[in-house]
Amino acid sequence: MTASRRPTIGVFDSGVGGLTVLRALLERIPAADYLYFGDTARLPYGSKSAATVAHYATGAVHYLQDHGAELLVIACNTATALAFDPIRAASRVDVIGVVEPGAAAAASASRKRKVVVIGTDATISSHAYQRALEAKGVSVREKACPLFVPLVEEGWVEHSVTEQVARIYLSEAFSQDASDADVLVLGCTHYPLIKPLLRRVAPDHVIIVDSAESTAHAVAEQLRIEPLHLRDESERRALPRLKFFATDSVEKFKKMGTRFLGRSVEDVVHVDLKE
Amino acid sequence: MTASRRPTIGVFDSGVGGLTVLRALLERIPAADYLYFGDTARLPYGSKSAATVAHYATGAVHYLQDHGAELLVIACNTATALAFDPIRAASRVDVIGVVEPGAAAAASASRKRKVVVIGTDATISSHAYQRALEAKGVSVREKACPLFVPLVEEGWVEHSVTEQVARIYLSEAFSQDASDADVLVLGCTHYPLIKPLLRRVAPDHVIIVDSAESTAHAVAEQLRIEPLHLRDESERRALPRLKFFATDSVEKFKKMGTRFLGRSVEDVVHVDLKE
Repeated sequence: MTASRRPTIGVFDSGVGGLTVLRALLERIPAADYLYFGDTARLPYGSKSAATVAHYATGAVHYLQDHGAELLVIACNTATALAFDPIRAASRVDVIGVVEPGAAAAASASRKRKVVVIGTDATISSHAYQRALEAKGVSVREKACPLFVPLVEEGWVEHSVTEQVARIYLSEAFSQDASDADVLVLGCTHYPLIKPLLRRVAPDHVIIVDSAESTAHAVAEQLRIEPLHLRDESERRALPRLKFFATDSVEKFKKMGTRFLGRSVEDVVHVDLKE
Repeated sequence: MTASRRPTIGVFDSGVGGLTVLRALLERIPAADYLYFGDTARLPYGSKSAATVAHYATGAVHYLQDHGAELLVIACNTATALAFDPIRAASRVDVIGVVEPGAAAAASASRKRKVVVIGTDATISSHAYQRALEAKGVSVREKACPLFVPLVEEGWVEHSVTEQVARIYLSEAFSQDASDADVLVLGCTHYPLIKPLLRRVAPDHVIIVDSAESTAHAVAEQLRIEPLHLRDESERRALPRLKFFATDSVEKFKKMGTRFLGRSVEDVVHVDLKE
């Protein structure tokens, strides 16, 4: 596939969190068709076993392919962490997950070769970021932050409670031998919404790597799409076409999704995936 | 069914929360066999539509019946609130939910005829408690408290963050025309674990009604089981038999379940429910 024609990119997540990845993709690759699948009836994947996650994700990925996706983005840290290999094996098209791009960005940003990764219980327990980073010669402190997702979903993105929780989590994350880590990886697609708060709470010297942005960058590279400022006027002005599929309430998806995508979520179709 | 022989009671929840109901049942009816079904692969029901919840719960209820349950307890506020009628219609045996017993206990406890109900988003949005209480001539303020479940699951049951969150939620719940409400209904099976904290934060004059305890009381009445102190020695000493079914990781269920049940969770079988 080349950038000479408009690509159809399938984006998959367990819910609305992956819309932060779609948001980053829209900024970088506006001249594309996007199919977004949110498996909202079965979220969160974070509390489920690897086998269950692989089973669910594979069904969604097949659905996106059958609807024309030529490239798949697993915009879900848990699914990428727990089930990337089975998802890729089940797919006819190229698949990009969020872990490898985030790990690569962190590895190139870290001078100290020491990184802190935060995410859900399932992502952290999988040690997917640790494996990816250690393979690049970077040592890792992983820290599960299970309260961040519900705090973001409550809408408390700038709230004293969220700040207190962040202070507790990050002080544990950057303690002892991780005190000189110089990169913080946001290993959950909900976390970009509290990035300004995390920026205030994290040690000043720390660079924050947002897996959503790193993934959008990796997708553009895969499609050999030039940076936006190099492209011609017509392409810079091209509007993306968006279509959304959700396995649970369409109304809930629109309402919550709009906050994550940063623009109105309109064309949502309900999908009933049989297991 | 009478109390003259040992009953088999099926208890259903989306996860481990219903174990607080089982805990209350064990205290009140120790001489029974219990089958507990936790649909952990598909939790939480709180974010799902009524149709999805009804579909999932019905499958679980059939499973419990097929394994010998003679009475079913829907130990899940969300499933009771969203899908009690379809669950009862699909069941061959008697079904008791958590909403009606909690509402009945609240109605008899309230002198002011004004009650506050807290629960998950889904339970509150369903207005199931409001309908049940208004039918008893009691006016209701409902308040969703979506952060309590993840705070309990994080283990922060006595924590300054949880107390701060509780102060915010309860001050909203008891504001304006609900300021003289004299009963607080814990409309979520996770909340008994933070009952001591809620007792401190709630206004002093407020009586706390725990739906788990009210439900255990309703089950004993349904089975015509006498209060424990009236029964003979052999029955008081009888040990319950417990068997657990979980749709996701058995190890996770054991670990988390032990905290909710207040005793060791041992005999857990993994179940793969096809939709």
